[in-house]
Amino acid sequence: MSSAAFDVLRKVTTATITTMLLKKGIRRCWMKGPKPLVPGGERLIGPAFTLRFVPAREDLATPESWARPISTRGAIEAMPDGVIAVADAMGIDTAGIFGDILCARMKMRHVTALVTDGALRDRTGVLASGLAVWCAGVAAPASVNGLTFVGWNEPIGCGGVAIFPNDIIVADDDGAVVIPQDLLDFVAHEGAEHELYESWVFTEVEKGVKLPGLYPPNDETKARYAEWRNRL
Amino acid sequence: MSSAAFDVLRKVTTATITTMLLKKGIRRCWMKGPKPLVPGGERLIGPAFTLRFVPAREDLATPESWARPISTRGAIEAMPDGVIAVADAMGIDTAGIFGDILCARMKMRHVTALVTDGALRDRTGVLASGLAVWCAGVAAPASVNGLTFVGWNEPIGCGGVAIFPNDIIVADDDGAVVIPQDLLDFVAHEGAEHELYESWVFTEVEKGVKLPGLYPPNDETKARYAEWRNRL
Amino acid sequence: MSSAAFDVLRKVTTATITTMLLKKGIRRCWMKGPKPLVPGGERLIGPAFTLRFVPAREDLATPESWARPISTRGAIEAMPDGVIAVADAMGIDTAGIFGDILCARMKMRHVTALVTDGALRDRTGVLASGLAVWCAGVAAPASVNGLTFVGWNEPIGCGGVAIFPNDIIVADDDGAVVIPQDLLDFVAHEGAEHELYESWVFTEVEKGVKLPGLYPPNDETKARYAEWRNRL
Amino acid sequence: MSSAAFDVLRKVTTATITTMLLKKGIRRCWMKGPKPLVPGGERLIGPAFTLRFVPAREDLATPESWARPISTRGAIEAMPDGVIAVADAMGIDTAGIFGDILCARMKMRHVTALVTDGALRDRTGVLASGLAVWCAGVAAPASVNGLTFVGWNEPIGCGGVAIFPNDIIVADDDGAVVIPQDLLDFVAHEGAEHELYESWVFTEVEKGVKLPGLYPPNDETKARYAEWRNRL
Amino acid sequence: MSSAAFDVLRKVTTATITTMLLKKGIRRCWMKGPKPLVPGGERLIGPAFTLRFVPAREDLATPESWARPISTRGAIEAMPDGVIAVADAMGIDTAGIFGDILCARMKMRHVTALVTDGALRDRTGVLASGLAVWCAGVAAPASVNGLTFVGWNEPIGCGGVAIFPNDIIVADDDGAVVIPQDLLDFVAHEGAEHELYESWVFTEVEKGVKLPGLYPPNDETKARYAEWRNRL
Amino acid sequence: MSSAAFDVLRKVTTATITTMLLKKGIRRCWMKGPKPLVPGGERLIGPAFTLRFVPAREDLATPESWARPISTRGAIEAMPDGVIAVADAMGIDTAGIFGDILCARMKMRHVTALVTDGALRDRTGVLASGLAVWCAGVAAPASVNGLTFVGWNEPIGCGGVAIFPNDIIVADDDGAVVIPQDLLDFVAHEGAEHELYESWVFTEVEKGVKLPGLYPPNDETKARYAEWRNRL
Repeated sequence: MSSAAFDVLRKVTTATITTMLLKKGIRRCWMKGPKPLVPGGERLIGPAFTLRFVPAREDLATPESWARPISTRGAIEAMPDGVIAVADAMGIDTAGIFGDILCARMKMRHVTALVTDGALRDRTGVLASGLAVWCAGVAAPASVNGLTFVGWNEPIGCGGVAIFPNDIIVADDDGAVVIPQDLLDFVAHEGAEHELYESWVFTEVEKGVKLPGLYPPNDETKARYAEWRNRL
Repeated sequence: MSSAAFDVLRKVTTATITTMLLKKGIRRCWMKGPKPLVPGGERLIGPAFTLRFVPAREDLATPESWARPISTRGAIEAMPDGVIAVADAMGIDTAGIFGDILCARMKMRHVTALVTDGALRDRTGVLASGLAVWCAGVAAPASVNGLTFVGWNEPIGCGGVAIFPNDIIVADDDGAVVIPQDLLDFVAHEGAEHELYESWVFTEVEKGVKLPGLYPPNDETKARYAEWRNRL
Repeated sequence: MSSAAFDVLRKVTTATITTMLLKKGIRRCWMKGPKPLVPGGERLIGPAFTLRFVPAREDLATPESWARPISTRGAIEAMPDGVIAVADAMGIDTAGIFGDILCARMKMRHVTALVTDGALRDRTGVLASGLAVWCAGVAAPASVNGLTFVGWNEPIGCGGVAIFPNDIIVADDDGAVVIPQDLLDFVAHEGAEHELYESWVFTEVEKGVKLPGLYPPNDETKARYAEWRNRL
Repeated sequence: MSSAAFDVLRKVTTATITTMLLKKGIRRCWMKGPKPLVPGGERLIGPAFTLRFVPAREDLATPESWARPISTRGAIEAMPDGVIAVADAMGIDTAGIFGDILCARMKMRHVTALVTDGALRDRTGVLASGLAVWCAGVAAPASVNGLTFVGWNEPIGCGGVAIFPNDIIVADDDGAVVIPQDLLDFVAHEGAEHELYESWVFTEVEKGVKLPGLYPPNDETKARYAEWRNRL
Repeated sequence: MSSAAFDVLRKVTTATITTMLLKKGIRRCWMKGPKPLVPGGERLIGPAFTLRFVPAREDLATPESWARPISTRGAIEAMPDGVIAVADAMGIDTAGIFGDILCARMKMRHVTALVTDGALRDRTGVLASGLAVWCAGVAAPASVNGLTFVGWNEPIGCGGVAIFPNDIIVADDDGAVVIPQDLLDFVAHEGAEHELYESWVFTEVEKGVKLPGLYPPNDETKARYAEWRNRL
Repeated sequence: MSSAAFDVLRKVTTATITTMLLKKGIRRCWMKGPKPLVPGGERLIGPAFTLRFVPAREDLATPESWARPISTRGAIEAMPDGVIAVADAMGIDTAGIFGDILCARMKMRHVTALVTDGALRDRTGVLASGLAVWCAGVAAPASVNGLTFVGWNEPIGCGGVAIFPNDIIVADDDGAVVIPQDLLDFVAHEGAEHELYESWVFTEVEKGVKLPGLYPPNDETKARYAEWRNRL
């Protein structure tokens, strides 16, 4: 994994990342559902470690199932340092996939963040665990109330987006996006350039420049920007 | 697989099957979404052969992907005689998972039926293929418009229900239900008894008997029914 | 109950009834959800006999509950001749409120029709019972899978509309509408006039008359219609 | 408008059309909602004549509004021969945009079809009018119960798809699709070829040929098909 | 009502309560919709005082209806000290069931909290009233815009859960749950034990203990915990 | 535009405004979706400047489209001082209609606020721009990911409500409402009176007065209030 690209991307908003991916024809990269449990935190990035649930069935989704080899517990112990765990909860927000104890263990294992289109439970305890979380809500019931855990590091859907293990996840206050692995360098490089350009546009707007011709730029604006860019 | 149990279940409605499963505490067994493409056909039964989709991503879900080893084509060629294919389309009904050609091939391979919480495409051609289909709708676009196929014979969700490979699927005009494998004999035996009892109740109702005390039965009704039952 | 008004309303479409109620400021009279189980049947009318469900709770919604005094069975035995039973299923279409046996009993008791924003189960048997049904779907599971029955002849909601016992229900291929009791005569009288007018408009359209000035009518059209009306 | 292309497209399924548009990167071309009011009719094609509604507001959406210059009546009189009227009802299916009289007038004016993501009212009368209709449902209330008509031949959304006046609409049993005007010839030509190829594949499947290598074709299949194609 | 059990439950999270109810087979106890209007407040508990709405009908749901004997005003005056008012708004979040004045009166009457699957109005004034509120949103329109009040202390549904008068309601930052009356002592006792156990697990996790074998506990963990538990 | 009425309305809550409009039979005036991006700000008022989107189509909704004459950029430059921009995003909350740069330009142009039933992007930057925003969420992707901009100052729908250019918009913590232009003076005058009355009622409640007879007032209360009102 290119840590240089990661360092660049930490300064690129998820908004800009989606615009870069659109240049490659990818529109389905932002997950509907995951929102920061605590807004205003820093932007996080990491390779995806996927978790997959199917709906609950009363003979399968029981507290006893938590002790099976294929369990959320087993999955957590398999997470490498620095990953972002992405859990496919099928958008079900009436059962909390994880609570304070599992989040605390993930934090201990140096998991960067947890992203899900489902809910967390035990909001107070999850906040206390210090794990960064993007989720679709909070619900008191345990996962087995609505979900059966079936495996990790398989392809999943999350918030209407396909996520494959080791795809790159970036999350900030606008939510969470996925970058296919082979587009990482493109997105990092183009994204950083785009951020620079938008910062210049912002200062132009503050000076009172009109939008047409500025954003997107016409030839005259392009020239002015190039000049500014070259002076950096 | 117990073909004797299958023969019994062919005469047991999916409505009765859900009531038998409720006796075992299972409420989540009927799939929301799948409806018979042609109502009024016969009840069908078979072991589940599962198909799994995740959402489309423009770099993955392309017509070219249809030639990959992990493709719906590969899955169809792997289906044994007599299975019911159950496809997890995540309830997305804006892309048809299969059209006439794939259905025709499934029919050639003696697949009993196709059940999905998604849509089919090419309605006219699918009807012509002769494959029995339970689906949530019809949509012109191909699967890649909304879905990426990722594998077969994995645990899936379909219509809010967990389906594991080789679970038993029964489908009729009330839709499709799943019977966990280890409950097959219980459901078949109890279900057949229940059907017999309900047929007797129906004739009682036609004679003008009131519902309270009859359905469910009080002791007097139980005795009357036992007498009738013993005479069979 | 004015049977003369009923006889008039049997010839007035539910579409026209909603337009007459709009003249009195009532927009919320058509139930979203109930559709004829068998389209093409005759228009039916009757006073509402309401049935009320709340969501299932596992300690309450059990097969055993069917033997309690407050049960769907008890409700059916309390239905007078000619009523239309309207069941508030809160739009839940994953559990069938009634199956063939209960429908057969309602038919025996001369219930005119069953209207619900929920589902029926046992589609084949319900059709065989001969009871006219407007519902939102078909589902195999019994009511207790999703619903707890709590009483009859209380105010309910059905399909987003308030229904009070003895309000007038009319159902045809466009669905089911409610007429508040004190507007029955107004709707019947005005509705019949409106139907006559629309039948004349239809013949005008078939002659090639343009819509503006015809429908709604300008003064010239009003005069032409009055002349035609007077000759009847 | 190229009537030659129209004649070709009459033999190309909407399913195939969506696949041809996907080759041009267009995934959003099939309207979610419109279904044939009477399945099994012929495929229809025509340029789009758009109708636009916004939500009802009680001071605007009144029966009186039907007599205003900007009204559905005015729109119908402005429809040229052969168009397919496409109505943006914002997916609201609780108010019928048109009933029997307006449909009869459209039929008189040689409108090819009506497509909407909303509902029709007066189902029996609409069927009698003979107008071909694709809609999302049937509802008794008039349009003013939920909708305010605001204009025609403006860009609209219908079923999640952008429709511009004079875009090409094709509708069959799989629903309705839009073809951007400048892609008409491409879609017609490629679509016809694709239909021919799929018909050949279908016969191959009936002979027992496996799917991998056949559909999509490998080089050997391409050669076999080319040979067959050349003999036509 | 057992105030001892109440005192115990004040220290048991709603998350734990749902897990205890699952031991009794109850999965449907957490209400989807109600969220704390002000997160971070204390956990509240009380017997349910139910309020029931049906949809609005223009002839019934008027400002005048607020003066009727069966009105929200009448219901509020009937509320005993310490109850938690639970309002069934059918999940309609486009009309505020109560505003500042009614909340202020509830506070004066020592109502513990208001829980609803609908909306409140007058957010600023409701906060000023000091009443603890769990609701599904905020909306400016009055209840009569979408709802008709029909009675109090009847069985209701709220957020997909059945609530009977005097069931026990507990609400905290994870939302609101219902405890059936006859399970109160079980849930209080088991819940308190479970909280103790989870607090010990949390400290174990902080020491770096792995999850498998710890949570749920294997025999070795059970022994270690028993030892710790006995020393308290 | 009556600035006197505006000054009055700044002290009238949106809750009260909906009640005043209900007196005129208008129930559909509050937009479902728009919520303050930063709660607790001041109430804002202004004439509506409408923006209209249709769904994205891949050949139309491209970054290049931002340079077209009919673009969001063009619309912003056309906004007069003091308007409230209201954007019809069809409730699509997976694409941000505007980000920080466009909001900054709107702020420079003295736009009072932006109201939409869609999402914003670039949450951090939008907050920094200082523009007051009511929206339905935050999403990273640009508008072209889900939307095509088609024009300004046309009639639109927003959150289920019809908005015409120059209708009056008022927004506060309860959301955003529209006042038809010809009802502005009525709503302002009646609304101010109603606020005065409610403030008096609030103090009565704080004194311990019961609700029945007080709110709504009976004759005795009306007299007491009139006396208090006259002393002001």
